[in-house]
Amino acid sequence: MVSSPSQRPSSYWKLKVPDVEPGGLSDALIESWPSYATYVVSFLTIGIIWVNHHAVLDRIRNVTRPLLFMNLVFLMAVAAIPFPTALLADYLQAGHDESLAAAVYGGTMAVMGVTFGAIWAYAVLSEDLLHEGVDPERARRSLWIFAAGSPLYVLAIGVSLLSATLALAMYALLALFYLFDALPPLKQGDEEKGVGET
Amino acid sequence: MVSSPSQRPSSYWKLKVPDVEPGGLSDALIESWPSYATYVVSFLTIGIIWVNHHAVLDRIRNVTRPLLFMNLVFLMAVAAIPFPTALLADYLQAGHDESLAAAVYGGTMAVMGVTFGAIWAYAVLSEDLLHEGVDPERARRSLWIFAAGSPLYVLAIGVSLLSATLALAMYALLALFYLFDALPPLKQGDEEKGVGET
Amino acid sequence: MVSSPSQRPSSYWKLKVPDVEPGGLSDALIESWPSYATYVVSFLTIGIIWVNHHAVLDRIRNVTRPLLFMNLVFLMAVAAIPFPTALLADYLQAGHDESLAAAVYGGTMAVMGVTFGAIWAYAVLSEDLLHEGVDPERARRSLWIFAAGSPLYVLAIGVSLLSATLALAMYALLALFYLFDALPPLKQGDEEKGVGET
Amino acid sequence: MVSSPSQRPSSYWKLKVPDVEPGGLSDALIESWPSYATYVVSFLTIGIIWVNHHAVLDRIRNVTRPLLFMNLVFLMAVAAIPFPTALLADYLQAGHDESLAAAVYGGTMAVMGVTFGAIWAYAVLSEDLLHEGVDPERARRSLWIFAAGSPLYVLAIGVSLLSATLALAMYALLALFYLFDALPPLKQGDEEKGVGET
Repeated sequence: MVSSPSQRPSSYWKLKVPDVEPGGLSDALIESWPSYATYVVSFLTIGIIWVNHHAVLDRIRNVTRPLLFMNLVFLMAVAAIPFPTALLADYLQAGHDESLAAAVYGGTMAVMGVTFGAIWAYAVLSEDLLHEGVDPERARRSLWIFAAGSPLYVLAIGVSLLSATLALAMYALLALFYLFDALPPLKQGDEEKGVGET
Repeated sequence: MVSSPSQRPSSYWKLKVPDVEPGGLSDALIESWPSYATYVVSFLTIGIIWVNHHAVLDRIRNVTRPLLFMNLVFLMAVAAIPFPTALLADYLQAGHDESLAAAVYGGTMAVMGVTFGAIWAYAVLSEDLLHEGVDPERARRSLWIFAAGSPLYVLAIGVSLLSATLALAMYALLALFYLFDALPPLKQGDEEKGVGET
Repeated sequence: MVSSPSQRPSSYWKLKVPDVEPGGLSDALIESWPSYATYVVSFLTIGIIWVNHHAVLDRIRNVTRPLLFMNLVFLMAVAAIPFPTALLADYLQAGHDESLAAAVYGGTMAVMGVTFGAIWAYAVLSEDLLHEGVDPERARRSLWIFAAGSPLYVLAIGVSLLSATLALAMYALLALFYLFDALPPLKQGDEEKGVGET
Repeated sequence: MVSSPSQRPSSYWKLKVPDVEPGGLSDALIESWPSYATYVVSFLTIGIIWVNHHAVLDRIRNVTRPLLFMNLVFLMAVAAIPFPTALLADYLQAGHDESLAAAVYGGTMAVMGVTFGAIWAYAVLSEDLLHEGVDPERARRSLWIFAAGSPLYVLAIGVSLLSATLALAMYALLALFYLFDALPPLKQGDEEKGVGET
């Protein structure tokens, strides 16, 4: 069977440049909407988790070997995100198998979220790893907010069986949910770090 | 329909390696001029905006959550630039639909410019975010120079309907326009930052 | 001869997005298990060697030209890893030539390990390059642990002739073997480096 | 005309994963030697120039706008290197047009070398940009060693018309030529920079 041009898989990072065919660019751009939508959702999710990752590491005083290894697994999930992103874009455009693609997308995001939460939980529960400027009581309470995201991802994976488009919208909302700063504030006694947060 | 080799879309980052065919390398290299031209314009634009982005962040004292989010949207536009670059190179070479491709190119650049300007405007107008070494009056005046770029991009998008090549030349000139330092000088009282600007 | 879709080589970095065909996504995902397995092994290996590389550089006081050149050759081996990763994934899935692919994979890993060990050996044996916080005696003993990895890689390359899958499992175990901190501790007199290791 | 698998252009970064065909891996790996040879030469060239670039920037006190722009053009040449690398690998393997490909390769390297030399020449000749720890007289003399590389690249481009393989060997030797430290030593009065060079 000869592949039609639209069946070519997406270029890995991430906006698909359509095959050059006479007079077809405007149609090709409109048909490629899943490529743009998944690009935006994946970029926002990675960007927001990047900001939060930075904030978590600021609150950790001692970096131990187990923490480095957990961080490595977390980075492995982050680095894998372009794969389900391309998958979901391709199958949303193809109009079949998009539920499975959306479930794979949500599963990758859930793994990323769980490993990220595990880093923070490990640091909070083994108390001597926390920065002295962090209130241990508030740190422990923040774990509940982290934990709240996981069932929402499970819910979104369930929704993807009904509608992949709706599931994608839920993933976007989940990214924005993590935009709010759930971490306890960091009181810094040293002045050389001038970049504060209000 | 079987695709001819020249219809293969550009490799994403960015100079297109032509298909290997006997005796055809010199012709293939000459035909690929849009690939080199768009590479140069995109690289210069990203490079100059990178220098300016660094200069803007130097003049901001407090990095707040809204600023981080605006920066994320700005980075999303920057990271998308290879897409319209490959699109414009492909359609300039194909000789059709190049106006639409040039307009998409200009639109991406305009989004990047607007989000970049928004970061600086937000920092200038909510005065406590500005570094103390920046004169607030001159900072406010610099916003006009930032604002001047946006209608020029709109003009270039209009020109792209007449000639995609001419529009590409305008995008190059717009990049060079931002080469001039429009930001107010930064007076630094601390000596440990030895890298000054004359 | 027309290539069947499964004969398309892997996208370079690294999880292969399957060609879009009706109803075939779940099968395509299951068939692509070598792509995920090699991704995980390569990511873990690079990640663990990255942590160890950081730890080695922390223990080196003077960076000389020969050291920079050895580091360059080491980085060249690291940057080449996606190549045998894609090769092994493709041929494990194709079901032929996988022994040669697994041997090439192991050979690349062995080159990386040997150049990495050479950097540390060079620093330890030319004693004035070592950080003063490192005990030279313990540093010399640590060289034996480094040397122990090389024959294991040679063994795994031999095993790859029997079973590529078993060899891949051995490469994963070898990565985890390097997870244990073989380097002598670094005693730091300066307090500004607050990140200690327990 | 249907393309044979070996005519597929190289993946951009840089070691070509061969198409999967029964029993053909060992032959495919041997035939792909230009891919490995050009990878090594390009990696060494970029790596050595990276070390030298770092050393040059260490000797520059004031970073001015013209210097930033020259650096941008230099980085544009560096970022373009994968293109002639893939080109030369493809045409060496194809066995035709390899002279033109080798000349394009040498031309890109020469542009990189000239822009790199221009940065150092600009810093040396406009004397107030030099770090105070650099002897201006020795800095001026070092410019001759920088200048010596350019005619050698021109010579190698000429040689590429006779033999692309010989030209590639010359490019490798030229990279190693720049391995020797041609820059004047940097005397540092401040102790916080503990990484010295012997």
